[in-house]
Formats: sequence, C-alpha cells, structure tokens
Amino acid sequence: MRRSKRLVLLSKFLSDNPNRIFTLKYFGDKYDAAKSSISEDLNIIKDAFHEAGEGTLETIPGAAGGVRFRIKRPVEVIERFLAELSNILSDRSRIIPGGYLYMTDVIFSPEYSSKIGEIFAQLFVDAEPTCVLTVETKGIPLALMTARALGVPLVVARRDSRVTEGPSVNISYISGSSRRIQNMALPTRGLSEKARVLIVDDFMKGGGTARGMSELVREFGAEVVGVAVLVATAYPEEKLVKKYTSLMVLEKIDAERGEVSLKPVKIPIQKEGI
Amino acid sequence: MRRSKRLVLLSKFLSDNPNRIFTLKYFGDKYDAAKSSISEDLNIIKDAFHEAGEGTLETIPGAAGGVRFRIKRPVEVIERFLAELSNILSDRSRIIPGGYLYMTDVIFSPEYSSKIGEIFAQLFVDAEPTCVLTVETKGIPLALMTARALGVPLVVARRDSRVTEGPSVNISYISGSSRRIQNMALPTRGLSEKARVLIVDDFMKGGGTARGMSELVREFGAEVVGVAVLVATAYPEEKLVKKYTSLMVLEKIDAERGEVSLKPVKIPIQKEGI
Repeated sequence: MRRSKRLVLLSKFLSDNPNRIFTLKYFGDKYDAAKSSISEDLNIIKDAFHEAGEGTLETIPGAAGGVRFRIKRPVEVIERFLAELSNILSDRSRIIPGGYLYMTDVIFSPEYSSKIGEIFAQLFVDAEPTCVLTVETKGIPLALMTARALGVPLVVARRDSRVTEGPSVNISYISGSSRRIQNMALPTRGLSEKARVLIVDDFMKGGGTARGMSELVREFGAEVVGVAVLVATAYPEEKLVKKYTSLMVLEKIDAERGEVSLKPVKIPIQKEGI
Repeated sequence: MRRSKRLVLLSKFLSDNPNRIFTLKYFGDKYDAAKSSISEDLNIIKDAFHEAGEGTLETIPGAAGGVRFRIKRPVEVIERFLAELSNILSDRSRIIPGGYLYMTDVIFSPEYSSKIGEIFAQLFVDAEPTCVLTVETKGIPLALMTARALGVPLVVARRDSRVTEGPSVNISYISGSSRRIQNMALPTRGLSEKARVLIVDDFMKGGGTARGMSELVREFGAEVVGVAVLVATAYPEEKLVKKYTSLMVLEKIDAERGEVSLKPVKIPIQKEGI
C-alpha cells in the first residue's frame, strides 16, 4: 500500500479509536507495511494532529506499549465553542413556561454531544476513568460520547430496577432541588469493584442526583474519579457534591423579560506541548 | 501545508462528519490550498476509503454540490460483525431469571453502538431520513450513533411529558407483548411536519412500541421512512408494524438448559461500486 493511502486509513482509524493503545506490529499487519514505514507515517500524523489542534499521538514504551491518540484541543478552541454554545442556549425562544431552559435538541444532537463528550474526556483523561456513569435519560448522549472519546464502557443507572437487566443494587436519595425521594438502580453486573468511574450528566442544580450516583458507585466498592456536567446553576452555591466540573453556569432565567443568563466557565486546564 | 498533512486532516474531518456535503472551496480555505490540490487529495482519500471498505466519497454536482463521505462497508464485513455479535450475546451467562437476555453492556458500549449505528445508517441512507427517533431508554445509544452516521439530529420520546421540555404531544398505545397501555410524549418543538423519520430501537417483540412511535410521528404530520431494530423476536411472527429491519432474530431462550438461540440476518443490500 502506498504511503498516501496508509496515511488516510491510519488517520481515520486513530481518530475513530481515541485513547486506546495499538502496537506498531498491529498496524504493520493491518496495512501490510514494515514497522519502520508505520513509524514514519505516525510521525506525520502526530505533527498534523498537533499543528491542527486535534490532539496528541503518544508513544507508550514497554511490553504493553504502542501508540495512542488523545483528543486535546487548545483551550481557546474549547472556550470559543462554549461561548457559541452559551449563545445558542441563551436564545429567549428556549425559555419554557415554568422558568426552564429547553436544551434537549442540543444535548441530543450528535454534533454537539460529541464535541461536549470530547471536552469532558480531555478534562478527565488524566484521572484514568475505566467507565462513564450517568442516570437516564437526558445525560445519556453526553455520557456515551464521553465514553467514546475515552475508549471506555458506558454504564446507565435506571430510575427503577428492570426485570430485563437481572439483579440490581438500588438506592434512594434526596433530590437536591425538589427535596423529593428518588430511586436509582444499577444491575449488579454493571460495575466491578475495581472500576474508576467518571460521572456525567447534562444539568446540576442541587447536586442530589450526582451524589446519588456517587453513593451507588460506593455500594459497588468502586471509586468516583470525577463529576462532569454541562450546565450547573449558580444557585444554590453549595451543591451536594464537593467536587464537580461544569462547562457552563446558569445564573438566571427571567421568563417575564425573556432573558437567559448562561455563561461559559474558564477552562481550568493548562496548554501543553506533545 | 504539505499534501501528507492535508491528507491526514481531511481524512479525519470527513470520517468525523459522515453524510454531509462540503464544498472544495470550504476545504481550500480550511487548509489554505488550491481547489485543484484539494481535488487531488480527495481522489486519494476516495480510493483509500473504497479499497479498505470504509465507504464512498461522492461528488455532488450543482450549486449545492460538493463532496460527501458515506459509510459503506462490504456486506461480508457487516455479516461477520453480526455473527460475532450474535456469539457474544448468545453466551449462557447472559440469561436473566425470567428468560430475558442481558444486552445492556453491548448496546451501551460506544464501540458496538457506533458499529450498529453505522450499519443502520448504511441500510437506510437512501431513504433520506432527516432525523432519527427512539423512545427512552435503551434505544438511545444506538439511535444517537445512527444519527451521527447519518449526519442528522436525534429526537427522543419520553415515557411521560416533562415540564422541562415544554408543551408536548402525548399518545397512549398498547404494548404488543405485555398488552398494557403505555404512554409516550414528544415536545411539540421536537419534530417538524417536513421531517422524514427513521425509527431506531434495540429490541422488538410485538412491535407495539415501534407502532406507537409511528403514530406519534403521524401526529406531527411527519413521515416514517424506516424502522430499524437490533434484535427482533421470531415470535410473534406478526408484528404490529408492517415493515421493519432487524439485524438479529431471537428464536428462543431456554433458561433451563442455558441455551440462547440468536441468529444474524442476511443483509438485504447489494454490493455497489463507487
């Protein structure tokens, strides 16, 4: 196969399989090329991805080593995207009677959910999550796209245990905002006790749901390595989880005046070379 | 920018944005290159994607024209994947008390859901769907990945109408298998009357849920262009929807003997050149 075609196929493959390690031998066999040729291809791809701000191509030494593509966008690019997203979501036509904000089309869109998932993945990849957890329903697209970008499985807690999913661990928790008792269930085969869990959700007000998910994780003897939400409300300031990351802060919805006050956060990550 | 780097970035971009049309001018500006150079790059990518069985790069003539990447895998590749998936799902450890099959880990995994979504997209792309519809919860990952591969939005019906999503259209329908009355709701702003809807779900027994979704679509004055499910049961043979496509057929679960009889279907598509 000629170099130009290998470059095309390797670029697509790496992009489709982020955060996973592949050996040079694997690619050599796949594309019927010498390891030295693959190595040169990977250098070209590494430079191109880096210069275009797509991400890094890292070489992992050792017996389990190989090469790994990680999505890593420059902070300015992420902040520009969040500013654009805040604008879209602040449109007055999105105000719903009762003072809610219609975000469903955005968080369910493949285009936005994949970009948001890639940002979550970038922010939490160093915590080395081995799975992503959310609770049905609206967090699922963001959580799935985060799991995809991290190359790990997705686990979804249900509001009730389901006969089709077998035995489950069930918890009750108090919703932070409505103060109502809610239920959450996860099949016993859903999480191992060695799991390092990244919790993802679309929205956080009181933080009760995220706290419920944390408790569920602890019931399995597993560990929460992060909590990521797209939008958190500014009030109450004290959430029921200590540490969380939100990409946008919702300060106020003024239904009378038709004003939404939604702001992107400053991304708390450093720029790094490769 | 050198050709090799453009090839890397163009390949990634096209792969990340399937089924969407981009002009040569767009790429020329993006990569600061002459249209003639971009055109040569695209020919190399077209050949590479075609030869590797990834898909086609089509040139769309006219004022709204440009180039479009469509995922199109050879039938043998799809059938091999479905055979492997059937094997995984037929494992006796997946039998759940009550005679159900545990599929959640597979349909929620980014790896499998994206492959299944790409197959659905390939099978229905010629029907020109403008959105994908599913009902919460377990169909969401497959539906999202199908929408991603088609480059169209995802719409999710809820079991109840939600205050956070504003006014909705609600229907009641009779579940095909349990004969119980169920509800389904979709925000009025969720679908336009011009929508061409591809219905996606993980599992079909009686077909009542798919029929309910079809009725919901008709309430909006929109059109159903296809129904795609991952697994359909062999019995009842008569489903409540006339036309549907399932990738696998579940014939029997024998909990006593620990036997699952799940078979991939023969894919009903023709191989085509580009």
